[in-house]
Amino acid sequence: MKHLLTAAMPRDEAIGLLDLAEDMHQIQDRELKKLPALRGRTVVNLFFEDSTRTRSSFEIAGKWLSADVINVSGKGSSASKGESLRDTGLTIAAMGVDGVVVRSGASGAPALLADWIGKPVINAGDGTHEHPTQALLDAFALRRRIHGRAARGKGLDGVRIAIVGDIAHSRVARSNALLLPALGAEVTLVGPAAFLPVPAADGTRLGLRAETSLDAVIDERPDALMLLRVQLERQAGKVAPSVGEYITGWSLTDERLARLGDAAIMHPGPMNRGLELSSRAADGDASTVLAQVTAGVSVRMAVLYSLLASDHAADHRPANDGGLR
Amino acid sequence: MKHLLTAAMPRDEAIGLLDLAEDMHQIQDRELKKLPALRGRTVVNLFFEDSTRTRSSFEIAGKWLSADVINVSGKGSSASKGESLRDTGLTIAAMGVDGVVVRSGASGAPALLADWIGKPVINAGDGTHEHPTQALLDAFALRRRIHGRAARGKGLDGVRIAIVGDIAHSRVARSNALLLPALGAEVTLVGPAAFLPVPAADGTRLGLRAETSLDAVIDERPDALMLLRVQLERQAGKVAPSVGEYITGWSLTDERLARLGDAAIMHPGPMNRGLELSSRAADGDASTVLAQVTAGVSVRMAVLYSLLASDHAADHRPANDGGLR
Amino acid sequence: MKHLLTAAMPRDEAIGLLDLAEDMHQIQDRELKKLPALRGRTVVNLFFEDSTRTRSSFEIAGKWLSADVINVSGKGSSASKGESLRDTGLTIAAMGVDGVVVRSGASGAPALLADWIGKPVINAGDGTHEHPTQALLDAFALRRRIHGRAARGKGLDGVRIAIVGDIAHSRVARSNALLLPALGAEVTLVGPAAFLPVPAADGTRLGLRAETSLDAVIDERPDALMLLRVQLERQAGKVAPSVGEYITGWSLTDERLARLGDAAIMHPGPMNRGLELSSRAADGDASTVLAQVTAGVSVRMAVLYSLLASDHAADHRPANDGGLR
Repeated sequence: MKHLLTAAMPRDEAIGLLDLAEDMHQIQDRELKKLPALRGRTVVNLFFEDSTRTRSSFEIAGKWLSADVINVSGKGSSASKGESLRDTGLTIAAMGVDGVVVRSGASGAPALLADWIGKPVINAGDGTHEHPTQALLDAFALRRRIHGRAARGKGLDGVRIAIVGDIAHSRVARSNALLLPALGAEVTLVGPAAFLPVPAADGTRLGLRAETSLDAVIDERPDALMLLRVQLERQAGKVAPSVGEYITGWSLTDERLARLGDAAIMHPGPMNRGLELSSRAADGDASTVLAQVTAGVSVRMAVLYSLLASDHAADHRPANDGGLR
Repeated sequence: MKHLLTAAMPRDEAIGLLDLAEDMHQIQDRELKKLPALRGRTVVNLFFEDSTRTRSSFEIAGKWLSADVINVSGKGSSASKGESLRDTGLTIAAMGVDGVVVRSGASGAPALLADWIGKPVINAGDGTHEHPTQALLDAFALRRRIHGRAARGKGLDGVRIAIVGDIAHSRVARSNALLLPALGAEVTLVGPAAFLPVPAADGTRLGLRAETSLDAVIDERPDALMLLRVQLERQAGKVAPSVGEYITGWSLTDERLARLGDAAIMHPGPMNRGLELSSRAADGDASTVLAQVTAGVSVRMAVLYSLLASDHAADHRPANDGGLR
Repeated sequence: MKHLLTAAMPRDEAIGLLDLAEDMHQIQDRELKKLPALRGRTVVNLFFEDSTRTRSSFEIAGKWLSADVINVSGKGSSASKGESLRDTGLTIAAMGVDGVVVRSGASGAPALLADWIGKPVINAGDGTHEHPTQALLDAFALRRRIHGRAARGKGLDGVRIAIVGDIAHSRVARSNALLLPALGAEVTLVGPAAFLPVPAADGTRLGLRAETSLDAVIDERPDALMLLRVQLERQAGKVAPSVGEYITGWSLTDERLARLGDAAIMHPGPMNRGLELSSRAADGDASTVLAQVTAGVSVRMAVLYSLLASDHAADHRPANDGGLR
C-alpha cells in the first residue's frame, strides 16, 4: 500500500509524477475531459479544515478519472462528536473506499491515518507540516514556464527560487523546501526574522539559505518568486511584523516588480492583493497564479492515478519511491 | 462565449429555450433520466447564498445531462477568507470547468464574473436584481397550463398576469417583468406602495402597470396570479406593512381565491402558508407551485445544454440572442 | 409505491433483504465496485440532522448502483426558512427524483413524507423512533459472524443478544428490538432503570425481557452484546446515571470482556471509548464494529435496489412485505 504524505521524494519519482501530470494536463484542452482509469473506485475527501479550493481540485481530478468522490467535512462528522481520528479513518476505510484525501489542522494526521487504515492516503495539507500536492503543482507550473512543452523528463536544475513570507508556519513552504531542491533548484527562504524557521547548526534553515531582505534577494535576479499567503488571523498576539511593516519589507510592490525582470511570480492563493503582492504583479505576464491552479488538477489526477489505478502501479512507479511510500 | 445573465431576451430566443425545455421535460416521464449530452463537461454551482432548492435543481439538471457537477458554497470558501469575487471566479475557471452557475447576494455579480472568466456563466439569482431561470420556469409552467402539450412554439400572448408582493426588492419579479411581456403577456404589478418600484416619467414601474389594490385586480379576473415570497427577515426596521396589514390587503385568502375563478396560482417557493396565500390556494387544482418546481429542472437542463453543448450551439441558438449574450 | 420506514417486517422479508445484501457484499472484494442497476435513477439524501457516517454510507451505496445522489442538508434549506416538512418533501419529489433517504430529529417524519410524496422513502433515522437500516446491518454483521459465508437463507434462531444502554431514547435499540426477534433471536434489554422503556402490562418492555444488571446478563454468556452510544449531550438535567455510575454498572470494561468469552461485541458508532466499552473490547477479535460499517453499505445497496430498481421488484420482493410497505 502506498501513500502521498510528504513532498520529500527522489528526483526521478518527482519527475515521474510531473511527467504523468503532463499526460493528464492534455485533458484541459479537450471537450470531453473524462478518462475511465478509476471507474469503480471511490475516493473520500476528508476535510477537517475548510478548503474549497483544494477540495474542489481533488474532486474534479477524481471525477475526470471517473472515480466516485465522496466529500466528508469535519463539521457535523462523527469527529465533531468526539470520535478519534483513528476511528473516523477506520470507519471510512471500512465502507470500502479505495483512497482517502485528508486535510487536517493537525500536523501528522495523514501519516497516522496511513498507518491505521491500510488504504492509500493523500495529504491535502496538515497543520504547519506539509502540503505535497501544492509543491508538486508549483514545480509543474514552474517547469512548464521554463521549459514549455519540452518539460517532460526535466527537473529544475539551476533554477533560483525565493520563497517569501511566513516560512516557519507554512506547510506550502515546507513541502516546497523539500521538493524543489530535489529537482535541482536553488531555493532561498525570505521573510521577517520572526517568520524564518530556527537555524540548524550549520546556519541553514530547513537545510536552505535564508535571508531577511527581500530587496537584496531581488537584486540577485531570481528566476522565480513564490509569495506565501500571509495569514493575519493566525498572527494575533504573536511577535510578528505589522501589516505596514510587512508591506514595506516583504510585499512584491510595483517597484520591486519592476526590478524583478521576467521572474515568475508564484502564489498558492487565495491572494491578499496589496499585501503579499500588488495587483500588477498578480495579473502580469510573469504571474503563474492561474497556471498553478490549472496544474493542481493535473497533478492531483497524476497522484490519484498513481496510487489508485492498481494495474498501472507496476509500470509507472519507480522502485525507490520515497514520498510515495 | 455566451451566458445567461438576464431574462431580458427576444421573443424567439425565449420560445426557443422553452421549446428546448419541453424536449427535456419528456425525461421526467422516463425511468432512465440520463442524456449523454454533457458527458465530460464540468459545471460548478458557486453559491454564495444558501439555496438548497435552486442548487439541487441545477445539480439534478446537470447530472441528467451527464455533466460532472461540483458544489462550492460561499461559506468556508476562499471568498470567506477575503478573496475577491474576481479571483474566486478566475480560480474556479482555471481548474478547467466548462461553466459556472452563480448565486450571489450582490446584484450584478454574475455579469462581472461573465466578463472576467471567459466561461459560460448562469445567473442563479443575484441580490435584488434578477433570477432568469426562475422567470423561464414560471413562463414554462404557465405556458403548459394554458396550452397543454400543444405549447411548443407558442408565447403567452394576451395572457393577463398579476405579480403580487414586494416587487421592488424581488429578483423574481424583476426577471418576470422582463420575460413575460416579451412573450406577449400583460403584466400588472401589485403590492403595498412601499413595495412597488419607483415610477418612471410615464407613470409605469419597470415599464409596467402597477396597482396597490389586489382586490381591484382580482375583480379584473386575471389569468394568473404570481405571489412572491414575503421575506419578513429583510423588512426589519423598514417602512413596510405589518404581517396583519399584508394579509388583509395582499394575501390570497380563501375568500379572494373564490373570486379568482380558475386563474393559475403561482409561487416560486418556499411558501409562507397563511401569509402569501392560504393552504387551499397553495394546494388547489389551480396551483402551479409543484409544476413550477418540475419545470425548473427542465428549464435548467435547456439552459445548460444551450450554453455548454458546443456542437449544439450552432444549430439551436438564434443569431440575435439577447439574454444569452 | 413502497418504502422502508421501520424494521418491523416478516421474517422472510428480512431474510430476503439480508440475502440481497449478501449479493451486494461481494462488491466489496472487487476492484470495480459499480453495478448498473440504478443508472438514470436519482436519490436525494435529505438530512435534517448531521450524520456524516450514515449519509456517506447511503451516498456510496447509491453511487455503486450507478444512481445519481443529491445531498440536501437541513441547514440552509428551505426548511430552515420556515417551510413545512410537507412542502419540502413535495418540492424535492416534484424535481423528479426517484427516492428520498431522510434523517430527521422528528420521530415519524419519514412516515409522513411517505404518505405525502408518492415516491419511495427510506428512514435513515428519525428522532427516538427507528433506524431500520442500522438494525438490518446489525443483523447482517451478526449473521455473518455466526454463520460465515453459509449465512444465506438463515435467520438468527436461538441467538441470545443483549442490547445495553439508553434503550428508551435509542432508535437503534428500537429497530433492533423489532427486527432481531423476527429473525429468531432472543433479545434482552439492559440498562439503568431510567434508560429502560416503560413496562407493558405483562412486565415486558418493547415486548422483550429487560434487566438492570449487566453483570448478571454477562453471567448468562450471551452470544452478542450490542452497546449503544451514550449521548451525554442529550442527558443534561435529566434523571440519569453520572458518567462514573454508567461506567461502573454498564460499561464493557476489560474485566467484563474477559467474562464474556467470544461473544460478538457490537456498537453502531461513533464509539466513546472508555465509556460504553474499553479499547480492548472495541478492537478485539470479537468486535464487529467495522464489519457493521462495511455491512451498512451492502444493506443500503440492497434496500435502494429493492425499492428503486423497478423491474427487479416483482422478482425479489415477497408479497407480504411489512416494513417495506
